[in-house]
Amino acid sequence: MVAAVVGLGLMGGSLALDLKDKGLADKIIGYDRNEEHKKEALHLGLVDEIVEFEEIKKADIIFLAIPVEGIIRTLPKLEDVDRKTTIVDLGSTKEKIVKECPKKIRAQFIAAHPMTGTEYSGPLAAVRGLYEDKIVVLCNTEENDKEHLQKAENIFVSIGMQIVYMDAKEHDLHAAYISHLPHAISYALANAVLKQEDPKSILILAAGGFKDMSRLAKSNPKMWCDIFKQNKNNLLTSIESFKKELRFATRLIEEEKWEELQEWMQKATTLHKIL
Amino acid sequence: MVAAVVGLGLMGGSLALDLKDKGLADKIIGYDRNEEHKKEALHLGLVDEIVEFEEIKKADIIFLAIPVEGIIRTLPKLEDVDRKTTIVDLGSTKEKIVKECPKKIRAQFIAAHPMTGTEYSGPLAAVRGLYEDKIVVLCNTEENDKEHLQKAENIFVSIGMQIVYMDAKEHDLHAAYISHLPHAISYALANAVLKQEDPKSILILAAGGFKDMSRLAKSNPKMWCDIFKQNKNNLLTSIESFKKELRFATRLIEEEKWEELQEWMQKATTLHKIL
Repeated sequence: MVAAVVGLGLMGGSLALDLKDKGLADKIIGYDRNEEHKKEALHLGLVDEIVEFEEIKKADIIFLAIPVEGIIRTLPKLEDVDRKTTIVDLGSTKEKIVKECPKKIRAQFIAAHPMTGTEYSGPLAAVRGLYEDKIVVLCNTEENDKEHLQKAENIFVSIGMQIVYMDAKEHDLHAAYISHLPHAISYALANAVLKQEDPKSILILAAGGFKDMSRLAKSNPKMWCDIFKQNKNNLLTSIESFKKELRFATRLIEEEKWEELQEWMQKATTLHKIL
Repeated sequence: MVAAVVGLGLMGGSLALDLKDKGLADKIIGYDRNEEHKKEALHLGLVDEIVEFEEIKKADIIFLAIPVEGIIRTLPKLEDVDRKTTIVDLGSTKEKIVKECPKKIRAQFIAAHPMTGTEYSGPLAAVRGLYEDKIVVLCNTEENDKEHLQKAENIFVSIGMQIVYMDAKEHDLHAAYISHLPHAISYALANAVLKQEDPKSILILAAGGFKDMSRLAKSNPKMWCDIFKQNKNNLLTSIESFKKELRFATRLIEEEKWEELQEWMQKATTLHKIL
């Protein structure tokens, strides 16, 4: 089986490494718009060959590991692939992508969101085992051909993932709370500190807590701006829920209602009984 | 040298382990208000002996590893210690503690804030090496006797810490941004998700990013409520700075100003060039 990976960064590059390691593809071909990334991916051995975009259509399975706006622009260019070719995207939003997918390839297009990643990007960020023991959400699979769905499921399971099925609309709301909102918060925290008079003298005190809270603010701005754009309404809803909690706590602090504040904190600690 | 540790939880217990490992004390005596913690600390070998509060006064150095409100209540009870006994607190706030320290023991009281910890608490949370390669802030040391200051500095350096000297007022503002604000945000994020209709179906999607962002929300509510109380004004200032950033981003998302949003994110990523 020939696998094609479009986008040779963290997600695509790591997937390519796993496909090869697990013997899931005889050959892995890769495409990226960025010339530097092409060279790096080949040099790092992420893919066997770098090809022109048209050539990826010859693969048995095509993975789109590119920013979500790019996925929407790319799908119409794949309308003429063979009906046996499976197409899988790895984007962080699903509703708009599923909706915009051309009808002609909808049955063979698997909308997937692997819940994994790091704050780094590009081919140099690719690592083995990124997908191991992680969740992948597959959306609206009732619109897929069984054959294509099974091909994708088999690969995700083979690289160590657990599959969760979800409606794309529901996925996007949940992803807003669990991933997109935390990114927005992390960027805001980083900017709040940077705006202070002498950020260096603040940051010298940074320990594990602050490093964890600001880690997501290292994430690729272009990629995350695309995600925020596609999940605008859910993201705004989740930001409002968060702001409401922070407003509540702020009021308790202002009014020195320490017992109520402690109860509010106590409630938050229960999250980890579920998590 | 006999060292006394008051409060046998994460900070005090870990310190006791390091004091023993590094041969910095011949004997370590411990006190805790919590009967269960006393037994656990002795059972875990954190201290050599559990003593009554009055007995800790016989030690050569006393560490106060208790919540910040407890530190303020305890200092007056130590007014009658020998003038050669060094007292060190490990609290996360410094201005109020330094101000409230009785004059009689001010020269021998070292106000310290080790920038380390985990989200866990109690004697079972104590670990070796918690202080290794971490920063400790010492505040208003010009008010200290050289002899006492050197005794404390020597211990902090011996357990692997790097000392930063700071005015207590400045420390509290910086600590608000680097530690107290991130805790408030983490509690708010946890509560925002818990308030949703079906938090479990959201949390099943949690990956590293969300886990990092919600980790601090596991922290001891009593301890953190005390810190918020003592650092009320700085915390409110830092929350307002953060809210301002989030409001700015929210407006850009609402108005679909994606280029400006990306610039805002790009700015945030520069934090890691300093950090």
